[in-house]
Amino acid sequence: MALEVVLATHNAHKVAEFQRILGERMPGITVLPYDGPSPVEDGTSFAENALIKARAAAAHTGRISLADDSGICVDVLGGAPGIFSARWAGSLASDEANVRLLLDQLADVKRPDRGASFHCTIALVVPEGLPSGAEEFVAEGRWPGALAYEPRGSHGFGYDPVFEPEGREVTAAELLPEVKNAESHRARAFAALMPELERVASALSAGE
Amino acid sequence: MALEVVLATHNAHKVAEFQRILGERMPGITVLPYDGPSPVEDGTSFAENALIKARAAAAHTGRISLADDSGICVDVLGGAPGIFSARWAGSLASDEANVRLLLDQLADVKRPDRGASFHCTIALVVPEGLPSGAEEFVAEGRWPGALAYEPRGSHGFGYDPVFEPEGREVTAAELLPEVKNAESHRARAFAALMPELERVASALSAGE
Repeated sequence: MALEVVLATHNAHKVAEFQRILGERMPGITVLPYDGPSPVEDGTSFAENALIKARAAAAHTGRISLADDSGICVDVLGGAPGIFSARWAGSLASDEANVRLLLDQLADVKRPDRGASFHCTIALVVPEGLPSGAEEFVAEGRWPGALAYEPRGSHGFGYDPVFEPEGREVTAAELLPEVKNAESHRARAFAALMPELERVASALSAGE
Repeated sequence: MALEVVLATHNAHKVAEFQRILGERMPGITVLPYDGPSPVEDGTSFAENALIKARAAAAHTGRISLADDSGICVDVLGGAPGIFSARWAGSLASDEANVRLLLDQLADVKRPDRGASFHCTIALVVPEGLPSGAEEFVAEGRWPGALAYEPRGSHGFGYDPVFEPEGREVTAAELLPEVKNAESHRARAFAALMPELERVASALSAGE
């Protein structure tokens, strides 16, 4: 089934990654980059921020648009860093600084109180004027686990080196990429997204 | 009513502050400093950490002991910084660094999503062997408000310059100390503590 979707990011690597993941599941799909204005992400949840981005891209391009928002949620921090994961260390933010700060903040917290999970939300926005009718959908994926005491592993990015998925004794950065890609929060969000994307593609084909 | 209590802190200023506040409400009270070992504060709530400190002091001294734990809880951070308020900036932690980091993290969050509150918990631990019998009590005080966009005011300490109490258009650091002392989270926790402290003092007098 042929389908073109805009991904609301200026990051070409992310466009390529979405193309790969979605293309495996829906061979006719084409993921287009978005070069319009970036909205302020002032939502208070992953879903709100993903919708803000996907709505902006859909409004600017008139095309079906996707956007994702993800982060790490630490139980003892009430779900923070959450939507603030990428800027956790504020003006000093980098993967390394964010991870270091989070470990420092939780220096006195021991297992089993170090529970944490990775969250990924993908918003799908179908703009008005398409045969399928306007609609919005949010797919969520959660990968439960715990925060390690020190970084380990060289794969991945972000908080991967300090996230130990439940049922494993390694961090996400110690997993082979193909293993991580199969069971991560992102994989779970894509699994939730696909039926909806296929439904939209069918509705478009039927309406053409 | 005469009563001696140990305050589980090595901070002489805090001992003097508790003596002043408790002395106003119970003239016969004497607040003693604690010079024993400090336990690791590895609780996951204000109450757990206050109890850990008060229990340690009570066990070491055999005396009625108090300990407090307090912090700022930001709604959009799920209650964080919370018990981690004093070390929010990790190894760089200072009042100024903590405040700066929190403002940076919430740079894109606008009112009305900047809700926050100050929390104070005071634990009272009566050790075994006293005539009143062993017991534990936790008093909680909450001061609701919102996080300011920039620090304002020169009174107080900690997060006072960025906390705007509900119903006021100034920060806690812009309030006169006597106004803050009358309505703060700390004042509310002391108000909850006093009846319990008076009950313990009566039980001790009766048992002597």
